[in-house]
Amino acid sequence: MATVVFCSVNKTAQITARRCLFSRLKGLARSHSGESRLPLSCTHSQSGTSLAGKIWFSRGYSVRFTSHGTAGRAATGRTRRGALVLIGAAAVTAAAAVTGVLANANHFQRAEMATKVSQAEKETEQEGDILERCRGFMSPPVTDIGVLQERKGEMCTRMEMLIMETQAAFCNALEEVDGGKFKVDRWQRNEGGGGISCVMQDGKVFEKAGVNVSVVFGNLTEEAARQMRSRGKVLKGKDGKLPFCAMGVSSVIHPKNPHIPTVHFNYRYFEIQEEDGTKQWWFGGGTDLTPVYVNKEDAFHFHNTLKEACDKHHSQYYPDFKKWCDRYFYIRHRGETRGIGGIFFDDLDSPSQEEAFNFVQSCARTVVPCYLPIVYKHLNDSFTDENKGWQQVRRGRYVEFNLVYDRGVKFGLATPGSRIESILMSLPLTARWEYMHEPAKGTMEAEMLEVLRNPKEWV
Amino acid sequence: MATVVFCSVNKTAQITARRCLFSRLKGLARSHSGESRLPLSCTHSQSGTSLAGKIWFSRGYSVRFTSHGTAGRAATGRTRRGALVLIGAAAVTAAAAVTGVLANANHFQRAEMATKVSQAEKETEQEGDILERCRGFMSPPVTDIGVLQERKGEMCTRMEMLIMETQAAFCNALEEVDGGKFKVDRWQRNEGGGGISCVMQDGKVFEKAGVNVSVVFGNLTEEAARQMRSRGKVLKGKDGKLPFCAMGVSSVIHPKNPHIPTVHFNYRYFEIQEEDGTKQWWFGGGTDLTPVYVNKEDAFHFHNTLKEACDKHHSQYYPDFKKWCDRYFYIRHRGETRGIGGIFFDDLDSPSQEEAFNFVQSCARTVVPCYLPIVYKHLNDSFTDENKGWQQVRRGRYVEFNLVYDRGVKFGLATPGSRIESILMSLPLTARWEYMHEPAKGTMEAEMLEVLRNPKEWV
Repeated sequence: MATVVFCSVNKTAQITARRCLFSRLKGLARSHSGESRLPLSCTHSQSGTSLAGKIWFSRGYSVRFTSHGTAGRAATGRTRRGALVLIGAAAVTAAAAVTGVLANANHFQRAEMATKVSQAEKETEQEGDILERCRGFMSPPVTDIGVLQERKGEMCTRMEMLIMETQAAFCNALEEVDGGKFKVDRWQRNEGGGGISCVMQDGKVFEKAGVNVSVVFGNLTEEAARQMRSRGKVLKGKDGKLPFCAMGVSSVIHPKNPHIPTVHFNYRYFEIQEEDGTKQWWFGGGTDLTPVYVNKEDAFHFHNTLKEACDKHHSQYYPDFKKWCDRYFYIRHRGETRGIGGIFFDDLDSPSQEEAFNFVQSCARTVVPCYLPIVYKHLNDSFTDENKGWQQVRRGRYVEFNLVYDRGVKFGLATPGSRIESILMSLPLTARWEYMHEPAKGTMEAEMLEVLRNPKEWV
Repeated sequence: MATVVFCSVNKTAQITARRCLFSRLKGLARSHSGESRLPLSCTHSQSGTSLAGKIWFSRGYSVRFTSHGTAGRAATGRTRRGALVLIGAAAVTAAAAVTGVLANANHFQRAEMATKVSQAEKETEQEGDILERCRGFMSPPVTDIGVLQERKGEMCTRMEMLIMETQAAFCNALEEVDGGKFKVDRWQRNEGGGGISCVMQDGKVFEKAGVNVSVVFGNLTEEAARQMRSRGKVLKGKDGKLPFCAMGVSSVIHPKNPHIPTVHFNYRYFEIQEEDGTKQWWFGGGTDLTPVYVNKEDAFHFHNTLKEACDKHHSQYYPDFKKWCDRYFYIRHRGETRGIGGIFFDDLDSPSQEEAFNFVQSCARTVVPCYLPIVYKHLNDSFTDENKGWQQVRRGRYVEFNLVYDRGVKFGLATPGSRIESILMSLPLTARWEYMHEPAKGTMEAEMLEVLRNPKEWV
C-alpha cells in the first residue's frame, strides 16, 4: 500500500509515493496491532495544491521526520507559532470549520463553575518524547515535529499531540473491528495550518467513518473574534487584528448495522492573542451517541463512561454538560434531539488551563471505551429491511441537523477556502426522506422517537 | 379507495371516509382521463387538528360543496379576505414557507422592466364558472368555493384558481405516466389559511413527487413586511400591523431512472394592505431542471419552452430570468449550480397586475409541456448501477442546496407552526454522500459537472 495524496480544497489524486518521499522528509514509525506501520508523509505547497504522502514499511525500518518547516511554511519563512501574524480575515472561517462546533449561545453555568475548586484527580499526562509519540499517529502532525519539540510545554503543542493521539487511537480501534483501512489525506490551508482527514467508506462494519484533525492559525478581526466566543467578550487587537490558533479533532462514525449507533465527538482548543500580548484561550468539545433503536444498556454504558471521566474533574460537569448536549443537538423543526446525547461544552477556560486541559484529555481518552464495546456487542446482530429503512430515515434527520443547525458546519460552508470534504465528511453515505413518516404505536421505532422527543437521564 | 386524512403539523392518519363525509360537505366532481373522480373533502379544526377527506365516485354522481366557511373559519367568524385582520406575527413565517422562495436580494433589472411596455399577447384567461373549474382539482380549494364565487374578479381568487389548476394538471400528467396515485392531504393553519399537499412516493416512474398548494393569510409586522420584499420598501400598517395574503403552488419531482431529470417549479402571489387601504402586491416563481446527465436536446426543449412562454410577455424576461435562475440555484460551497436552470423571478409587480398575472399564468401552464415530453422520452432508458450511484450523489447535492440555501425552506424551518412535511417534501427519497467524489475525466459524469460549474446557454 503506497499512496500519496494531492490535496487541495476540492481535489485529491493518488500518485506513487516515490515522487516526494525522500526529498522532503524522513519518516515516522507507528506500531499497530502486531505489525509496524511507518507512514512517511510530505506536505508541499505549489500553486494552491498541497501534497502529502503516506507509506507503510515493515517493522525495523526506522526513519525520522526532518524538523524543518514544510514548503508551505517555508514560503512565509515562519513556523506555526511565529506565523500567528499571518494575514487573512478568512482564516477565522476555516478555523471555525475545522475546530468544529463553536461557542454555544447558552453560557451554561460557566460562571459558577469557574469559582469552584475542581475536584479532579490530576491525571498524569504521558508526555514522553514527542518523536516517540508521533510514531503512533495516522500521519505526521500538522505542525513540524521540530517545532513541537522546541515548544513541548506550550498548550498548543500539548493539544496538538492530544488530538493526533485521539485520532490514531480511534482509527486503530475502528480498523481493528472493521478489517478495513482508513484513507489518510493531509491538506494545507493557504492562510496557515492544515489538517489530516482519515476516512473509511463502505467498510465491512462502517458505512462511513471520518476522523479529522485540524490545526489552523491566522488573524481574526475584532468582530470575528467576538462572534467566535459565546460570552462575546470584547477583545482588543493590534490595528484591529488578533492572531489566533485553533485546533481540534472531530469524528462521525456511521455503521452499517442499524443496531450499532452512530457516534460523534469533537475536542478543540482556541487561542487568541490581544494587543498587549495577553492570551485568551478556551476549550470545547463533547461526545454524543445517535442510536437507531433504544438500548438502555448501551445508553447507560455510554453515559456512565462519560460521567466517570467528568466526575474526576468536577461533579457538576456531567449533569451540566449532559443537559447542554441535549439542548445543542436538537432538531427544532422536528421537535426531537438528534440522538440520545452525551456531553457538550464550550468556552471552558477554568479553573486553570492545566485543569481544563486535563479534563479535555480525560474526555478524549474516553472516546474508545465509550463506543467500541457497543460496536463489538452488536457486531453480529441480525436486522430486517425495516430496521435498515428506519436507520435510513434517522440518517436523514442526521443530515438535517448537520446542514441546518450545526454551527461548525454552517460556519465552514459559509467560508471561502474551507475544506468542504472534511466538513461534510460527517454526512452519512446514504439517507432517506419519507413523506409523513410516523412509526406505528408500540413499535421499537416509536419507542426511539419517544426518547428523542423527551430526552432521558440514563445514569 | 376511500381515505380521510387527519392532518396536523406532524401527524396524518387515515380513517374511513364515512366519519365526516356527509356531515360537513357535499363534494366535488373531477373528471380525469376517461374516468370521473369526485373527491369529497371536509376540513375541520379541533384542538389544533385539521381533518380532510377525499373519496372517488363513478361518473354521474354529482354533489357540490357547501359555500359556507369551514369550522376553522367559523371559529373566527370571518371568511378569508375578512380574516386578514387575524392576529399572529408568526403568520408571516408559515406564509413565507408555503409561498416558497421569497424575494431575491438581487433586484434584477426590475426597474428597467417596469418602464417598458409589455409586448405580450394578452392571453385569454379561461375563467369560466368557478364550481365547474373546481371539479378538476385534486381537492376543493383552500378558500371556500362560495367566497371564491363572490369575489371572482379579485386577484386572490384568480391566483388561487390558477395554482389549484396547475396542481391538478401536473398531478394528472404524472399519474398518467406513472400509473400510481397521489396521496392528497389537506391541512389547515391555525393562524389562517391552509394547503393541499399531493405526494406520490416510490411509484413506478417517480421515486418521490410532491405538488403543494398553500393559501395563507394574517398580519405582518412592518419589519417582517420589509423583509418579505427584496426592494425593502417601507410599508405603513395600522398600529404596525399589515394584513397580508400569500399563496403559491410548488413542486419537486424526483424520478427513479437517472436519465429522467428532477424538475422543480414554484409560482406565488403576495398581497399586503397598508394603513390607507392601498394594496401592495407582487408575483414570483420559476421552473428549473436538474438532470443527472447532460442531454442537450432535453435542455433545449426545456429552456425553449420556457423562452416561448416568456417571449409572449417581454423579450427580456427569458434572458434575465434565466440568469437569475443560475444565480439563485447555486451551491456556493461546491462551486456548482444545482441543475441546468430554467427561469426564476421575484418581486414582479409590473407593467400591470393584469399583465403580470398573465405572465405567471403562461409560466404555470408551461410546466407540463416543459417536463412531460422529457419524462416520456427516457421512460425506458436502461441504466447501470454506476448511473444510479451518480444520481444518488447528485441527490445529495440537491439536499445540500435545499437545506443550506433555499430561502423558502430556511424560512419555513425557522418558523414555529410551519407544516414541516410540506416544506421538506422537496427532499428526495434517497441520497448519498461519498467522500471526495470526483468523476474521472472524459466521463458523462464529468461532463455534467462541467456544465454545473459553468452554466450554459441552451437556446
